[in-house]
Amino acid sequence: MSHTAELIAIGTELLLGNIANTDAQMISQGLSELGINVYYHTVVGDNPDRVRQAVEIARRRADIIITTGGLGPTCDDLTKVALAEAFGKTLIYHEPSAQRIRDRFAAMERPVTENNYQQAMVPEGCTVLDNDWGTAPGVAFEADGTHVILLPGPPRECEMMFRHRAVPYLKALSDGVIASRTVKTFGIGESAAEALLRDLMNSLHNPTLAPYAKPTGTELRITAHAATEEEAYALIAPVEAQVKEILGEHVIGVNVNSIQEVCLNLLKEKGLTLGTAESCTGGLIAKLITDLPGASAVLKGGVVSYTNEVKAGVLGVPEDMLEKYGAVSPQVAEAMARGARKVLGCDIALSATGVAGPDPDDRGNPVGLVYLGLACGEDCIVQEYHAGKGDRSRIRRLTAGTALDMVRRHLTGRL
Amino acid sequence: MSHTAELIAIGTELLLGNIANTDAQMISQGLSELGINVYYHTVVGDNPDRVRQAVEIARRRADIIITTGGLGPTCDDLTKVALAEAFGKTLIYHEPSAQRIRDRFAAMERPVTENNYQQAMVPEGCTVLDNDWGTAPGVAFEADGTHVILLPGPPRECEMMFRHRAVPYLKALSDGVIASRTVKTFGIGESAAEALLRDLMNSLHNPTLAPYAKPTGTELRITAHAATEEEAYALIAPVEAQVKEILGEHVIGVNVNSIQEVCLNLLKEKGLTLGTAESCTGGLIAKLITDLPGASAVLKGGVVSYTNEVKAGVLGVPEDMLEKYGAVSPQVAEAMARGARKVLGCDIALSATGVAGPDPDDRGNPVGLVYLGLACGEDCIVQEYHAGKGDRSRIRRLTAGTALDMVRRHLTGRL
Repeated sequence: MSHTAELIAIGTELLLGNIANTDAQMISQGLSELGINVYYHTVVGDNPDRVRQAVEIARRRADIIITTGGLGPTCDDLTKVALAEAFGKTLIYHEPSAQRIRDRFAAMERPVTENNYQQAMVPEGCTVLDNDWGTAPGVAFEADGTHVILLPGPPRECEMMFRHRAVPYLKALSDGVIASRTVKTFGIGESAAEALLRDLMNSLHNPTLAPYAKPTGTELRITAHAATEEEAYALIAPVEAQVKEILGEHVIGVNVNSIQEVCLNLLKEKGLTLGTAESCTGGLIAKLITDLPGASAVLKGGVVSYTNEVKAGVLGVPEDMLEKYGAVSPQVAEAMARGARKVLGCDIALSATGVAGPDPDDRGNPVGLVYLGLACGEDCIVQEYHAGKGDRSRIRRLTAGTALDMVRRHLTGRL
Repeated sequence: MSHTAELIAIGTELLLGNIANTDAQMISQGLSELGINVYYHTVVGDNPDRVRQAVEIARRRADIIITTGGLGPTCDDLTKVALAEAFGKTLIYHEPSAQRIRDRFAAMERPVTENNYQQAMVPEGCTVLDNDWGTAPGVAFEADGTHVILLPGPPRECEMMFRHRAVPYLKALSDGVIASRTVKTFGIGESAAEALLRDLMNSLHNPTLAPYAKPTGTELRITAHAATEEEAYALIAPVEAQVKEILGEHVIGVNVNSIQEVCLNLLKEKGLTLGTAESCTGGLIAKLITDLPGASAVLKGGVVSYTNEVKAGVLGVPEDMLEKYGAVSPQVAEAMARGARKVLGCDIALSATGVAGPDPDDRGNPVGLVYLGLACGEDCIVQEYHAGKGDRSRIRRLTAGTALDMVRRHLTGRL
């Protein structure tokens, strides 16, 4: 049986543009993985009448309504009251939720005020969705053939509540289970990936294969529907193998988050350390690696050599080389990488020197031209890279990603 | 006369969760500045029937409808056709738009295909909104007392078209002009700013004063309505002065984007150079500065000293100091800053050493504890900072911002 869901986000801050409705994006992705159609998102302010009107419209066009926001004492539990009323449900006192609230406040050594107990009122006959990531519990119930799920609005809380509470509830609505795996690529655009995979995609029914465009590559999500999880993964496995074969060296991993995560794990596995020498990326490569917990096991350090003075003084790039070839040159990329390896005492050093824009450099090198170096032992590999004509932040992001991908390819014997 | 707007975003990619509806956020902010209420956002897929239904609902509850997306040949100009139909408008051929399309393709040395000319069809009697940032023109028209504005979906194109085309159109709907200025603060939360400004906010009618929470501080937007721009700014000036006085040293500037921009401009003005020595921020401070075009006039370079080895070897932090006090200590923050100033040859050096989490360090220093150093000439100022218990990325972002704010306060005599 195929379901149709509608998302209603409740919060005046969304209508004022203070925040974007990222909850809707996160939930839509999750519903798409579950094979549930979403035809509309609605955003409405903290206004009971308008919330009720949005619900009346939604229940005519969807059989699953998921709301985000408007729970908790600051908004008088607006969403719960409005939804219970719309579906003719009485709110009743839920002692286990009241106990959770008491425990939570006791742990913070703060007294429970009366309006906090409002959160222990839930629609009769509902499933209470315990909130381990915040105060307001979520709620799920069924009325007149419509499934209603109320989730808190703060993005992290919403995501945890959706993944760990709403998804199991929704999975129980359908027969069998849905499982998916995501093949992550680097450096291949959505249309190029689609062209390579079109025949495979068109031949598939279960599992399905869907591409998702990401800033540095394309994700291919394989989703299978089966009686058990084991069977679903058994359906996925041969398609995953085919996707990997077709996309070849572009594939950086399965169910991984980012190229920096892949690099960190590869370096850890092999017991190798990394260092950076950054010019145009100005610290971004080191920043991406150190975004990850556990980076200290791998990253020795980095040098942001934004001036020739620092390239020469700290990294030991010869001044006559800088003079002769300019800072944006394969020679300097190599000297930066070799210098960083020595100065930082790391196994592998990565360098980037290029023109991030908005203007060409004083030697007329165009915006987007970058040289990347990777020094390892006595060897050093230098690559010319063209980051395109995008804006500065895009050029820097692509350059940092491509530099990190050199590490991956080096460590997997593809460079 | 007070207007109510509704936003309709058209695009299946939004319903699949591939992208967030950031157009709605941007437009909502802009409409709020114009004093136009927004009660609903709707998102609908690339489906003519559902677009028409969303429009029918919207026209009953708003007198301004702004759509984003669904223009251009790839979606068969879905939005234009559906909206023209909903409002009983015939599409007619618009020669100047056809000419723009011919010129655009000629410049790219590509032939114009038939479906490109579809974009030159516009609702009769409409205002064509020339698109200097993409192919599909926007459109604005009025029918039965409803103003309808069609904008392209890609975020940058949408933003340019909104600011430079839709805003002037909307301003013309109201008498007089609306102007605003934004006072940017650092290190003060929304509720603290509101508490300080409540009396002033409540006493104001024109201009109005509204706080907007941002990750590193609060923005205060002062918006005035008057017959001319000059009069509007004259209304804003005394309120701006009051806000600045009340918030004091928290104010980093007016109509500025970020703390790094303020630092860059102050350093440029004073002809001073900067360098960084980063441990827990792992390159983020240098990255933030080099996000800005023109950073090379100011930033000499940086050292990411993620290990004690690099702190000692590159920055010259004494090994016995690292042994005795540990890397997360005021002593090491000072030695890092002084060392960076010497090694990088900069006027001012900024250092950060702390615990970004998720775990305390091996000396039991808690997550979020950071020491920041600022070396200038023979002096060095060290501050202890507590970045709270948030996640790693929040701690790093707050730490980098606070370090940059030390530069601002130093250069404005507040440190």
